[in-house]
Amino acid sequence: MANPILVEVTRGNSVESVHRGALAVAHADGGIMFALGDIGRAVYPRSSLKPIQALPLLESGAADAFQLGDEEIALACASHSGEPMHTSRVAAWLKHIGCSEADLACGPHPVRYEPVWVDMVRHGYRPTRIHNNCSGKHTGFLTVGRHWNIATEGYERHDHPVQQAVVQTLGELAGVSPELPWGIDGCTAPNFLLPLAAFARALAKLADSSTLSAPRASAARRIVRAMIAYPELVAGTGRSDTVLMRACDGRVVTKAGAEAYYAGIVPEAGLGIALKIDDGAGRAAETAIAAVLDKLGLLGDDRAARDLVRVPVLNTRGVIVGERRAAPALTNAELEALPLPT
Amino acid sequence: MANPILVEVTRGNSVESVHRGALAVAHADGGIMFALGDIGRAVYPRSSLKPIQALPLLESGAADAFQLGDEEIALACASHSGEPMHTSRVAAWLKHIGCSEADLACGPHPVRYEPVWVDMVRHGYRPTRIHNNCSGKHTGFLTVGRHWNIATEGYERHDHPVQQAVVQTLGELAGVSPELPWGIDGCTAPNFLLPLAAFARALAKLADSSTLSAPRASAARRIVRAMIAYPELVAGTGRSDTVLMRACDGRVVTKAGAEAYYAGIVPEAGLGIALKIDDGAGRAAETAIAAVLDKLGLLGDDRAARDLVRVPVLNTRGVIVGERRAAPALTNAELEALPLPT
Repeated sequence: MANPILVEVTRGNSVESVHRGALAVAHADGGIMFALGDIGRAVYPRSSLKPIQALPLLESGAADAFQLGDEEIALACASHSGEPMHTSRVAAWLKHIGCSEADLACGPHPVRYEPVWVDMVRHGYRPTRIHNNCSGKHTGFLTVGRHWNIATEGYERHDHPVQQAVVQTLGELAGVSPELPWGIDGCTAPNFLLPLAAFARALAKLADSSTLSAPRASAARRIVRAMIAYPELVAGTGRSDTVLMRACDGRVVTKAGAEAYYAGIVPEAGLGIALKIDDGAGRAAETAIAAVLDKLGLLGDDRAARDLVRVPVLNTRGVIVGERRAAPALTNAELEALPLPT
Repeated sequence: MANPILVEVTRGNSVESVHRGALAVAHADGGIMFALGDIGRAVYPRSSLKPIQALPLLESGAADAFQLGDEEIALACASHSGEPMHTSRVAAWLKHIGCSEADLACGPHPVRYEPVWVDMVRHGYRPTRIHNNCSGKHTGFLTVGRHWNIATEGYERHDHPVQQAVVQTLGELAGVSPELPWGIDGCTAPNFLLPLAAFARALAKLADSSTLSAPRASAARRIVRAMIAYPELVAGTGRSDTVLMRACDGRVVTKAGAEAYYAGIVPEAGLGIALKIDDGAGRAAETAIAAVLDKLGLLGDDRAARDLVRVPVLNTRGVIVGERRAAPALTNAELEALPLPT
């Protein structure tokens, strides 16, 4: 059976396009608190996996050994926009661990933050590996390798100890075998296939780390703290994660993933949220996660965040001709019943 | 019931995203020769309406009165990339009818053809109305107004005689009442809501104009001829319509529409093809129409066109990590049974 329509895009009085998807809200005790659509279907979390991919960086002791700050931890979990605040910090971090941009396995792609991109085009500069939105995650991988004093070359390969630590951690958090099928992410790192419900359970363990071992619990708390402290480093100016985390005022961590799961972590309620738009559209995932946070009473009245829940569609003269909005399956979802403090 | 999955995107051995949609193939006699999914659902054709929006330009006698060539006719049907071959011809055409860029109702948007866009950014130039992908269509509207010697200001309004001629023509071709619901397109012109099957029927009338009045039949043949003669003016370098029309070697007209119907016209068989990807993704519409043309035996072995049927997904280091391809509902569709000459 097809998943329900979560987001719709209108023009005039008619629906022009629809986005189907599935949503799972899990509690740290493993229970699924809310489900919409097929939450058993497995896809790759892609970049929404980053908070979990960063756990070995903390749990191994590498972050402490290299005296990393919360800014670096936030960047390890980031899909950044390539703004100077991102690239300058990643460059300094690489130097600090005795590495350089040449050690990054990720390739270049156009910088997302338009003023930087325009400046690069004007000066004839081409993007390099450090501009990759995952350069912080990769620097985190390198940091673990340095700390373990093992070869860092090939750190992006599935059989490298750093990636094996990632998948082991993911399996334990999600309550699934770590023998997960995998594919190669845009940044060349392996990414692991697991059901939406299992991913929501893993996120819930980050929300409430009380059942985890002491080193892992400490790592989980630090990641949540760092992402909440530096939402602009996790994404960038005007980006959905930055806007949503600011709007939720420290109560929520969110993390987008291209074509993938959109992740939410609600520490005060021990909840993990995961949603997947079937067709992979980022616009729909942003509106869906914003609508879920709004239904949970977490979004507040921040204008930029509310503008993700209902997004005007403009024509080329700037006139509103339609809107993107949560569809009835989401707006009627009884998320208000979930155990959140008021 | 949900529409079938027409296109899927893989990573590793797994399907990452799917695109559902509907497909209708109609014959000029009004019969539906093939259907997949809900062909009764109505959306806006958007830019795939352009070959029909151009009919009044020919049928009114305006094109002959102003001695327009096939290049201008192709541009009237275009969603162009803003390359010099497009903008220079539209500018000359505007001047030829005693108008200027200021008379265009469409707004500016970033130029799609990257070398031009990079050059504009380097020089600090901003796009203007003539760069709008619909500037040829709008110049066509202005030409009709000039020919009728009526006020051209407001030509983009629903109640203007030019737009009323468009909807009247559309209703007659599609066999529906011209009292169609409408919305405002990205370029400010009205666009009209009609079912996928009805749109496919209208396209089939362009494919085989034998049942149309003499002036309309002549207009339809001229539009088909002009689009086939100048596929690079209808879209632009590397764009799907340009690639597909070249690959089909004069046997097919195609026309994309953002979030909308993708149109195909097969004159030799009197067939009109219309498909809609539910979520509005252009990448899926391109692969779906390419797969349909391939199944019909029309695509040939042009490499660029075949690359639309199966599209590699690359990571940022240029390694193939997945693919976009037609899904079984399309690859198993029995389109080979349709009455095409071999």
